[in-house]
This record gives sequence, structure tokens and C-alpha cells, in this order.
Amino acid sequence: MNQIIIDEIIKNALIEDMNYGDITTDTLIEENGTSLAVITAKQAGVVVGLSVAGRVFEMLDSDISFQALKSDGDTIQKGEMIAKIKGKTRAILKGERLALNLLQRMSGIATKAREYSELVKGTGTRIADTRKTTPSLRILEKYAVRMGGCHNHRFNLSDAVMIKDNHIEAVGGIAKAIKKVRMTVSHTVKIEVEVQSLEQLEEAIAAKADIIMLDNMDVDTMKKAVEINNGRAVLEASGNITSERIKEISAIGVDIISVGALTHSVKALDISLNIIG
Amino acid sequence: MNQIIIDEIIKNALIEDMNYGDITTDTLIEENGTSLAVITAKQAGVVVGLSVAGRVFEMLDSDISFQALKSDGDTIQKGEMIAKIKGKTRAILKGERLALNLLQRMSGIATKAREYSELVKGTGTRIADTRKTTPSLRILEKYAVRMGGCHNHRFNLSDAVMIKDNHIEAVGGIAKAIKKVRMTVSHTVKIEVEVQSLEQLEEAIAAKADIIMLDNMDVDTMKKAVEINNGRAVLEASGNITSERIKEISAIGVDIISVGALTHSVKALDISLNIIG
Amino acid sequence: MNQIIIDEIIKNALIEDMNYGDITTDTLIEENGTSLAVITAKQAGVVVGLSVAGRVFEMLDSDISFQALKSDGDTIQKGEMIAKIKGKTRAILKGERLALNLLQRMSGIATKAREYSELVKGTGTRIADTRKTTPSLRILEKYAVRMGGCHNHRFNLSDAVMIKDNHIEAVGGIAKAIKKVRMTVSHTVKIEVEVQSLEQLEEAIAAKADIIMLDNMDVDTMKKAVEINNGRAVLEASGNITSERIKEISAIGVDIISVGALTHSVKALDISLNIIG
Amino acid sequence: MNQIIIDEIIKNALIEDMNYGDITTDTLIEENGTSLAVITAKQAGVVVGLSVAGRVFEMLDSDISFQALKSDGDTIQKGEMIAKIKGKTRAILKGERLALNLLQRMSGIATKAREYSELVKGTGTRIADTRKTTPSLRILEKYAVRMGGCHNHRFNLSDAVMIKDNHIEAVGGIAKAIKKVRMTVSHTVKIEVEVQSLEQLEEAIAAKADIIMLDNMDVDTMKKAVEINNGRAVLEASGNITSERIKEISAIGVDIISVGALTHSVKALDISLNIIG
Amino acid sequence: MNQIIIDEIIKNALIEDMNYGDITTDTLIEENGTSLAVITAKQAGVVVGLSVAGRVFEMLDSDISFQALKSDGDTIQKGEMIAKIKGKTRAILKGERLALNLLQRMSGIATKAREYSELVKGTGTRIADTRKTTPSLRILEKYAVRMGGCHNHRFNLSDAVMIKDNHIEAVGGIAKAIKKVRMTVSHTVKIEVEVQSLEQLEEAIAAKADIIMLDNMDVDTMKKAVEINNGRAVLEASGNITSERIKEISAIGVDIISVGALTHSVKALDISLNIIG
Amino acid sequence: MNQIIIDEIIKNALIEDMNYGDITTDTLIEENGTSLAVITAKQAGVVVGLSVAGRVFEMLDSDISFQALKSDGDTIQKGEMIAKIKGKTRAILKGERLALNLLQRMSGIATKAREYSELVKGTGTRIADTRKTTPSLRILEKYAVRMGGCHNHRFNLSDAVMIKDNHIEAVGGIAKAIKKVRMTVSHTVKIEVEVQSLEQLEEAIAAKADIIMLDNMDVDTMKKAVEINNGRAVLEASGNITSERIKEISAIGVDIISVGALTHSVKALDISLNIIG
Repeated sequence: MNQIIIDEIIKNALIEDMNYGDITTDTLIEENGTSLAVITAKQAGVVVGLSVAGRVFEMLDSDISFQALKSDGDTIQKGEMIAKIKGKTRAILKGERLALNLLQRMSGIATKAREYSELVKGTGTRIADTRKTTPSLRILEKYAVRMGGCHNHRFNLSDAVMIKDNHIEAVGGIAKAIKKVRMTVSHTVKIEVEVQSLEQLEEAIAAKADIIMLDNMDVDTMKKAVEINNGRAVLEASGNITSERIKEISAIGVDIISVGALTHSVKALDISLNIIG
Repeated sequence: MNQIIIDEIIKNALIEDMNYGDITTDTLIEENGTSLAVITAKQAGVVVGLSVAGRVFEMLDSDISFQALKSDGDTIQKGEMIAKIKGKTRAILKGERLALNLLQRMSGIATKAREYSELVKGTGTRIADTRKTTPSLRILEKYAVRMGGCHNHRFNLSDAVMIKDNHIEAVGGIAKAIKKVRMTVSHTVKIEVEVQSLEQLEEAIAAKADIIMLDNMDVDTMKKAVEINNGRAVLEASGNITSERIKEISAIGVDIISVGALTHSVKALDISLNIIG
Repeated sequence: MNQIIIDEIIKNALIEDMNYGDITTDTLIEENGTSLAVITAKQAGVVVGLSVAGRVFEMLDSDISFQALKSDGDTIQKGEMIAKIKGKTRAILKGERLALNLLQRMSGIATKAREYSELVKGTGTRIADTRKTTPSLRILEKYAVRMGGCHNHRFNLSDAVMIKDNHIEAVGGIAKAIKKVRMTVSHTVKIEVEVQSLEQLEEAIAAKADIIMLDNMDVDTMKKAVEINNGRAVLEASGNITSERIKEISAIGVDIISVGALTHSVKALDISLNIIG
Repeated sequence: MNQIIIDEIIKNALIEDMNYGDITTDTLIEENGTSLAVITAKQAGVVVGLSVAGRVFEMLDSDISFQALKSDGDTIQKGEMIAKIKGKTRAILKGERLALNLLQRMSGIATKAREYSELVKGTGTRIADTRKTTPSLRILEKYAVRMGGCHNHRFNLSDAVMIKDNHIEAVGGIAKAIKKVRMTVSHTVKIEVEVQSLEQLEEAIAAKADIIMLDNMDVDTMKKAVEINNGRAVLEASGNITSERIKEISAIGVDIISVGALTHSVKALDISLNIIG
Repeated sequence: MNQIIIDEIIKNALIEDMNYGDITTDTLIEENGTSLAVITAKQAGVVVGLSVAGRVFEMLDSDISFQALKSDGDTIQKGEMIAKIKGKTRAILKGERLALNLLQRMSGIATKAREYSELVKGTGTRIADTRKTTPSLRILEKYAVRMGGCHNHRFNLSDAVMIKDNHIEAVGGIAKAIKKVRMTVSHTVKIEVEVQSLEQLEEAIAAKADIIMLDNMDVDTMKKAVEINNGRAVLEASGNITSERIKEISAIGVDIISVGALTHSVKALDISLNIIG
Repeated sequence: MNQIIIDEIIKNALIEDMNYGDITTDTLIEENGTSLAVITAKQAGVVVGLSVAGRVFEMLDSDISFQALKSDGDTIQKGEMIAKIKGKTRAILKGERLALNLLQRMSGIATKAREYSELVKGTGTRIADTRKTTPSLRILEKYAVRMGGCHNHRFNLSDAVMIKDNHIEAVGGIAKAIKKVRMTVSHTVKIEVEVQSLEQLEEAIAAKADIIMLDNMDVDTMKKAVEINNGRAVLEASGNITSERIKEISAIGVDIISVGALTHSVKALDISLNIIG
């Protein structure tokens, strides 16, 4: 990850949470008092975001010591200690909420990603995320997806081509669209096309699309798509993906299943911070 | 809301989603082509974030026309049209994902908030959010909570005092903490204290705390708390709040029930954008 | 205070004062030359801003040592040494003006605040500042007010309600305005109302305003206001406050006297920096 | 002035004054309600900052109409109307404080500058400001000085050379310092030297300094300095400048008198904003 | 291109070129005076950057009218008029230098790119740029490359994999590196490997690298590489590319020739701006 | 130089080059692996930018050690080692391109500046740069010019007056323009006037312009200009400056020759970075 961007995220969030100070802590806690705090799981899951949480405290007090007891992607049990923090009490109390907000969200994503990744274990299918991430936190959320065992789709509109129906219509067909894009964009960029039917699929394969998204197709149609494709393009299933459908779809040999819910509907993992001394 | 901050949120998110351009759209869509698009609910709920979504498109093309067909806080049915957008096709396609990401998240929060607010209807109890919001989106999420019919707790560490166990311990008691804070902070600021027991409650009432948070108490203890308090401080229940408990707690006359899940575990409301002409 | 915001203030000011370099110092002073400098009071007063001044030099040279010989809020005599700085001569010369500009302004505010706070000593009345602060330096100026022994009013438009005549007129009366606000804003926020007459005062008290501002009233009217209020709301006197009036008003038992001149018309305290070795 | 920098100043200040919204106005004033407001002088003086004040409101509502009735630098009488504002009531109420804070400070500086400039009328002497300005507002304050009839000294450390005692000592003499600087800096930059004695003055003249600052000299010594210089360098008097001394010093033919108090100790000019319809 | 990023580039550059104002123009040109200016080629070439240049003036005066007489990528002759600008004289004079600096640099790149693209006309070979661009102007420079008829390589370290010798060594071989990367990165990302020998080439082809960079190979070796590859991977020649070598290399069927000099050693195209009325 | 601005340049450029991470390096290189790298000249020239290059790596890993083996402005031979870097391999690989892009550009400018400065050696003439610099890198480019042995012209529109034909025309003559400017701008600012003819020259001298730019004059006219001026104003030759003309012009005693090509058409100096252990 790019630490410079993460630092900006943390800086903006600390300003959001403290526009001029923590009026309770600045009044009641001695400026130089120090404490030992622990971060503990209150729920089993996959922990992600340890260095990000640690960075929150460091940005509030460069002398703080944040000791991660787990690594990003580790499974944690209810009650397990995740990290120890030693340093200025004021910094610990001021950073607590933001550190937990980030850690809980990232761990919530990773926990769900782990669950989904287990469903496709042993098959050749990958679960991928989408661009349905929280505005301005994409770098952290896509990292959590990877740590949970799933994979990333394109990061943004700049790093891969995704030809959708509006693009196709504007140009007059899949083949034309792919040809025009291939002539223009960098040779380092892959071209994905969204198709609604098997006819479109055949057109996209013929035009040598790198990746073809099977948009909202039923399992039977997807089965035929896999046969038609016969390993030429990377096939991606998308739309209305549930746990049950993941099982089914991965069984028929689709390469990628993309799931927006990995990031758009996150249940935070319950994690707490306690000062113990 | 402060539009200047919202514009910064949108600007940062558009840079995140497009670090140098939308390579598909910039290649395939004519620079001056225009379209008409509609935003439609694919699920019933409460819609919030219309002006924010509209602003995304305006920042991409100052000539775009975004017409909201609903107002923030309105109930929407599955299939209902929410807004119309008319303008440059490129701007519509580039802004689509961010506009929906914001709209879906805000509407998801409002939909849950509406549900919770119905549970306390007719009682004098309010449901309030917490600081467990998405880093850098708090202004939008707290707005969604209000539009959904719930209420906000303090915005951040600067605008209200919240004395917790670590603060109490550092100073040597609730009364001392309240006294010290009252001498120091502005007369415009309210003082809230978190209590774990009825003894602490009595101490806090005696010290004239404005708000007292009953932290993780069972319903019977809270009932006694309400009696002891007898209308003096504002009482706030917090910790492990579920739909069932909301009903129970509001029945005994607690003033506020604060619920982190309103914002930390959001299910996005399903909303789509389609170019129709 | 929020150090992240203070660092932004210093960074912006250093760019303002040195858009591409200090052409004199960069030419004439050796890159690695070091010096010892002292900051000295050239006038008696209350010193505030020591850590802020120190931070200016640290941001120019992370190895500099800034040793404060006084604490924020201390009384200083003419000729007293306030701080010692040891480090790169270039950093000392580049930071000198900004450090002094901040220190002199903050100490000027604190000195006046100390003077005003002495006037109300022994009474229950507080002197409070206003939002008439220097744009972008409010965090520092309100801190100086506190260190000088006065108190802060609300920080900004977000953290307390202040209902003024235009608001009252828009809604149709004080009672309506308070009721509407109370239904909407967080339970953690206090509600202040500005009143021009004793009738309005009674309406505000009846509507349970937390704070009532007596706007530009003469002493006799304020005396009656104190009697009518009888300890229910916090009473705040505002408008045309002079030293003489402070004495008078505090004598009649008003809780708060707010004084814009504390920050809008500051006389810098005379402080100098000298390189001594 | 550089409007881009002024817009940044206003943006930062609006965020400072409203971290998430104006909770009173957003609750009580209709979103689309409009008003007419007037800005009026409550004290005679020189008004400066009209376009800056207008810009505050424009940044809150691009449709607002701000009509200045005076020009920057105009003399205003107590009670005179300065500007009319027509537009969204919410924007007027949210921008009022910042617009006045800027206008009052800039007009306060200009009023004092006008006073000083009158003292040297008819002589060849100019009153100049210093770098003792409010951090981050220098562009506005130096503009106010000019509009008040005084002059600017260098803007910052980058745009003119100012050789002070520490620089002289580091290099080993005034002549050496000037020579070294002249060899290094741009031919577009003037060189000023601070001298403490007439010997230093002669050395500086001989070395062809463009400007020589007579630091804290008494009037008799300055008189001799003017004679010795005989029109060769620009002579600048500095240190402990009072109204009386300005008269005296300008009489002896010093070119420039620089006065820190023009900006470091500003008395805000009393100006108010009222909604009248 | 992402206009939000371009606006930031222009804003930063205008602040760089005018830290507090254009002291000549602000003094000598009437605030509301308007002019007509023309931008003219003083040298033949390919013009690029018209909308960027126009945006410079718009950001200084929103009412300015900038009329491009050419389109980006057009060939221009010496003496040809490129654009007309009508609006505030002050804005034209303040923006002139920045607009020309951008236009001349972008046109310089495009002119060279056009020259190179002509060399490969009729072959299947593309000329591509590199990451050797001017820090913070990459978005503009890569656009100029495209408009000149050449192609872009990856935009940055985030949007394509480029396995170099240090990566290969760290993992223990090309095959291992490709395998590890393929397992980890998004399926939307292409994998490029840099090879120094034909053995490495065969290893990379076997491991199904998408693109293989032939690093500093002589023409004979490259010829063999093309034969061995037989259309499987995209082959890219890199290192010491001159006009003569481009001819030779494209003749043997390499797909891509990447040329750092397209952006790292730019000769500005001579373009001038004149006020004509 | 102002390190705060340089840090902003580097930060923005690192975000440009790595919007969410270096996907190759983050995948293949161990997080804590360290390496030793050397920076080597592949071409003879003048090296400049060592501390800037070092800062790139420090911002990616605060523990990295960057040891410059040369000083800014030193002549380097082909094959000479310039710097050693020891630290995290990931940081070295991520910073490599940006560090080289800056170093190569700055050294390219310095190398050309050295060449030009040699042409005027022994004469009293200086070669100066212009404002034709790369937008946002002016601080670095003007520094490289100085290190190469040439001189800077004004930094920007704020720090010196430059009266051009449009200004003259607007006011009605050179004398009027100079007079108006002198009355308005700071006494610390020099006034330069651009003249097209010897008549204008005489007018400018009579009006006591500090610097007079001889715009696009032939050598004979410039010779006469030197005679007419007779040492009164600083004379600057500008327009169509080539190596041959520099020799000629410096011979006739013009003080300054300004050369846009020093910065607008830079050939990067070839410098490489290699990990050696």
C-alpha cells in the first residue's frame, strides 16, 4: 500500500473527529501521563488493519509503541489479544475511536472475504471485489479483501478497460468497441467486456476480449458460456451473488465471481480497546 | 451541512476512482455526447443523499442537470424513480459509481434509522448514533441518521464532554471530574458521564452531570436508574442494543438509546442508474 | 489542542513567509552552522504559545532543541528569558519571525484576558471570548484566552445553538424556535437564545433555554433579568463591554460576560529573539 | 492580489467556523429563503476588504449578489452603509461572522495606516509595514496597508535581501556580506542592510547597499545618517516608532519609516451586518 | 483526462508564479480593462494542450472566452494562429506564462511523438512512452504522447506489473515470480517481465507473461526473440532507442518500442501570445 | 530552498506514481528486506539534486540511509558513483524512478547552465534564467541553474516589476509607467522595463529604471545601448539567444543575458540506480 495516502486518510479523519481538541481528555488527563492499553477481539474473525491502527497512534504521539500480536489476515478468537499500546494516555484516548473504526471495518471485510474464499476452495474460481467501496477508503478496503483471501477487481476507472452496454451502444457493437479501445489504450491494459447474452459472448471472444463479464446470467447460461469460451477469455460472473450461488457458479468453471457486498455492506468486527495500566 | 467539506469529500473520491481518466469512456464516448439517465430504487427503503449525488455529477460537468424526484428522507418503493440526470454522457458514466456508492450507503443508514425510530414511536425515547462512523464520511452519515428519523450524538471529541472510566480514574472520582471539567470548558458545552453502577449514577446526578450514560446495564438496573434520576439528568442507554432491547428500554423511560450499528454495520440500499436516452 | 491542525497552520505560514527560500540566510549562513538563541520578554505580561513557537523551529529542523523556561499562562516580567533554542542557525533565522508573530499575538491575548479575569475575581462571573477571532487561528486564540484565565464561548457554528433575532423571526417566536431546535439537534448540544427585552427573557426561560444572552442591555435591565431568571438559565451579558462595565455587571450576578475585544483587537506582547552564541 | 490564495484563506476559515454545519440556521431557516442584508459602519474609518467579504458569501452560495457601495480605501462615516447583500438567508447568516472578521481587521489596519500616512504628507517619507503580520493573512493585511495610504516592505524572506547583525557576523563584515549576496542572488533583487552605527552606515554605503535600515537610532544620529548618505542609499528608520517620532523622523529626510504596529496590534473597525428584509 | 487533477496542477502552478499578486499588472492595468489576444505558432509542429491553456485563463477570470482554433493533435505551421482569448487584460497577462509553459511543453512532446510515430507507420509496431515524465505533470505528458500518435506504457506502479531483475532475483527465477504475482494481483492486470537473454525470454513465454521487455538487446538477438516468441507474448524493445534503431527494430516485428526521451528530454515548441486589441 | 515546499512536490509525485501501491514490489519483495544501491552517472555533466533525491527515499522509509558522494554543482564523469542508498528494498524500488526523474532533470539543467556560464567567464556578464520553467518545479529548476553557475531572474510575478509593452501602452509611456509603479510598489522591489528601441532605452534610463531589457535587439543596437546607458541601469539582453550570440553579446558589456532554453528545453542527464547487494 502507499503509506503517503494512508497517512492522508488518517490525518483527515483525525481532523474530522477532533476539530480543535478532545475537550474531555485535554482537561482531565495529565499531559505526560502514560498508559498501557490492549486491543482485544470481542468476536471471532479475521483481523486486518493492524499497521493502520498503529499509525493512528503514532500520528498523535511519535513516541508511542504499538505492538501487533497478530498479523494482517490472521484468524482471531473471541477474547484474543490483538495488540498492545504503550505511550501517552492522551494519545491513546484520542486515537482509540478512529483506530477501532478502521480496524473493525477492515476486519469485518476480511472476515466476510475469508468466508467467501472458503466456498471456492479447491475450485479454480476466484472471488473478486468491485468498485462498490467506501469513498476515500478504497485502498484499505481492497487490501482487506486480499488479506481475507479474496481478490481485487480493477482498482479504478484508469487501470483497466470495462466496456459496458452504454459504451457498446455508443460505438455500434462489441467488436468495434474492442477494436477502438485496443488501438488507443496502453498495451499494458486489459480489456473487459460486459455481455448479456451468449451471442454477445461469442462476439467478445472473437474480438479477443481479455475478460468477459457474464452479467446477471442464470447458471445454465453460464454453463454454456464456459463451454463456448473453452478457456479463451477469462470469464467473470456478476450480479445477485449469494453464498449458495457462489458454490454453484464456481462448480461450473467460471474464473471469477465478483461480489459487491464484500465491501458495500460491511458488518464491523467487534473489537475493543482497554487501558489496563 | 457544510458544502465546502462535502465538495472536498467528492473531489477526493473522484481522484481515488479516476487517477488519470476513465480510459474506457474517454475512448469510446464522444466528448460532447449527451444522455438522459435515471436513478431507480431496486429495493424499498428511505432515500438520502440526493443533493450529494447530484453534486458528484456537477463537479464533473458544471452544465449537467440533476433533477431529484424525491426529497431526502422520503420513503421509496422498489422500482420507483428517484432522480433524472441530463447532460454529458461522459460525466454521467464517470460519476455513476461514486454517486451510487454515496447514495446507497446514506440510504442504507437512513433505512435502518427509520426502522429503529419506528420502534420508539410514541415514547419519549430517542435513538442516537455514535462516533462509530466511516472515517471522513461522518458529516454524511450523521445527516442520514437524522433524515431516517433518529438523532445524533456528539459530532466529535471537541463538541461535548464525555467522561469515561479512564478519565474518572485519572482524576479520582466522578464528582471531581465533573467539577474540573465544568471549571474549564465553555459554558456552552454539555457534560456527559459514563456510569457502571447505580452508586456512580447517584454521584453523577449529585454533581449535576447534564447527561449520564448507563453503560451496558440490564433492564432492571436501568429501571432503577430512571427512578433514582427522577428527571434530573438526561439518561442514555448504551451497549449491546438490539431491536428487542430498544422496545424494552424505551418502555422504561430512558431518554436516549445510542446504537453504534446505525453506522458501523451498514447494508447498502440497492439503487441503480440507467442511461435511457 | 489538535496538533495536526496546528502543524497545518505553521506549514501554511512558513510557505507564506518563504515561497522559495530565505535568500539572505541561504546565501550567508553555513548550512551546518549552529547557534544558541534566547527568547526574551521586552514587556511584562502573560506568556502563551511556547510549544507552538517551538514547533515552528522543529518543522524547519527536526534536530533543533527548544527549551521552554516558562509554561503557557505564566506571568513574565520585562527582561525575563522565556525560552532557549539550540540548533541550526539557518532554521533559527528562518523561523524567528513566525515564532514571534504567534507568540506575541497569543501572549497579547492572554495578557488582556488575565487583566479581565482579575476584574471578576471572587464573583461567580466568567469572562468569555466570542467568534470574533482571526480567521484560521481560532484554535490558538481560544487557547490563549483560557491560559489567560478567561473562558471560551462556543468554538463555532457546529457545536452549540445560538438563536438570534433573524432565527426567531423566521420561525415566529422564541418558544417555537427553541422547541424546533430541541427536537432536531443532538441532546449533547446546549441551546442559547439572544434576547432584547425582559419579555423575551421570560419566554426563553419558560422554553427552557440553557443559556440566554442579554443583548446590549443596560445594567438596570440586567439586574431585573437576574432576578426574573432566579438561577434557571445561564445568563450572558454581551455588547459594548468595557472594563468598567465588567465590574458592574459581574456585581449583579450575571454568569457570563462575553467580550469580542479579547481577540478582535489584540495588542501584541513585545517579545524578542536574540542569537547569543 | 492572487484570488486563488484568497479563496484558500476563505475556504479554510469557513471550515474552521463550521466543521459540519450551522446547526441553528440549518434547523430554523428554510433552505430556499432569501433576505436582503446591509453592512454598516458603526465607527468612522477607512474601509478595506469589500471584495473579500463579498467572496465569502459567494463561496457559500454562488447565486448571491453582493453589492459594494464603497471602494476599498474609501473613508466611511459612522452609520454609513458599506454594502448590500441579497440572496439565501442561510448563506448570509453562515458567512456573516467571517466576512465581518475579515472586513473589520482589514479596515482597522487601513484606518491606522491612513492616520500614519497623514503624518508624513508633504514630506518625501513613506510609512512601510513589516513582516509582523498575522500568520496566513499577510496578503490581505499588506493590501490593507496600501489601501490606507502606507507602503509595503518586502513581502517575505524570498523577495528581498535583508542583512542583519547575525548575517554580518557570520560572514565577517558588511562589505563582505553585501559582496557575497550580490554575487549570488538575482539581479532583480534589492539588498538591504541593517546598521547600528554611523560607521556601519558608511561601510554599507561604500558597498552600495540599495537600502540601509537605521536600527533603533535616535533622531540626531539619523540626522547625521541622512547627511552622510547624501541620497545614495534608501534610508529606512526602524524601531520604537510612535506618532510623535514619525513626525520628527520624516522631517529630517529619512526615506522610509517601518512600523510593525501597523499590523501586529490591530484595533478592529466596528462594522455590523443586519438583515433588513 | 481527469479535470479535477488538471485543475489542481494549474492552481498549484498559479500560486508558484504569483505568491501574492502580479505587482506590475495589478499596478498598471485597470481592474476591468479587457483585451483580445492571440496565441500563435512561431515554429511548425503538433499542437497539444489547448483546453489546458484555456483553463488557466478561466481559473483567473471565469468570464474569459478562450476560443481554440485548432484541436489537440493538429499539425500547425509557423505563423499559424492557434487560439483567441478575449477577456480581462489582467487575467490574460497573469496567465500568459503558465499557459505557454504548458502548451509549449505538451506541444514539444507531441511534435517529437509525431516524428517517431511516422517512423513506424505501416509496421505493426507502436512507440510507447515510459515513466520518465516530469514529476506531477504525467497526466498531461502522457496525453501529449497519445495526441502525437504514439502510445502510453503503464501509467504508474499501481496499474500493471513490471517484473525487473531485482524482483526476479528476490523470488528466485522468472517462472516463480510470474506465478506468485498471478496468484496475488487482480485478474485485470497484465504482467510484464524484463529479460536480458533469450533463455530468460523462453522462461517468460513458458510462464505466460503477457508482455516481455527485451532490455538493451541488439537487433540480431531481438530478431531471434521475435522468432522464438512466435506471437505468443507482446514483445517490447527498450534501451538506447534512437531514430535509426526505431526503423530497424520495427522492421523485425517487435510490437512495442518504449522511448524515455519522448518525455524526459523535451524541446519546447515555440509558441507566443500577443495582445492585439 | 524551502524544504516544506520540496516535501510537497515529492509527496504529490509519489502519489502520482503510485496511486495505491507498487503491485510488483509489494508482491515480490519481502516487507523487511534491505539492499544497498548505488546511483551512477552514465554520462559526464554537473550533478544537482542530491538532497532532493535522498528525500524521496526518506519519505518512503524514514530509516533509509542516503549517502551523497558528490555535492550539488560538482562535475561528474561517466561511470562515477554519485550516491549510496542503504535501506528497505521496497522503498528503494518504489522511489527509484522519481528520484532519478528529479536528479536527471536538475542535472540536465545544471549541465547546460555550466556550459553557458563558461561562455561568459572573465566577462562581467551573467547568464540568467527566465520564468519558462516546468510548472510546479520552479524552485528546483532555479536552484539547478544557480548550481550550474548561471543566475536567476525574478522568481515570479510578485517579486520584481517587469514592465512590458502592454503595460506601457495601457499607461501611456515608459516614464509614466515607471513613475506609477515606483509610487505604488515596495521600496524593496526593483523595476525592470522591456524596451524595443534606443529611444525607449533613453526614456527608461531617464526614468531611473533599475533594469532595462533589450528585447530582441541586434548586436549593433545593443552596443549602442551599452554606450548610451554608460553604467546607469542594469542592461539585460533577451530573445533568440544561442551559444554564439552569448559570446558576442557578453563581449559588448551587457550585464545580463537571459536564456529561456536553460529550463524550457532540458535534456536529462543520464543517471542510473542499481541495487548491488
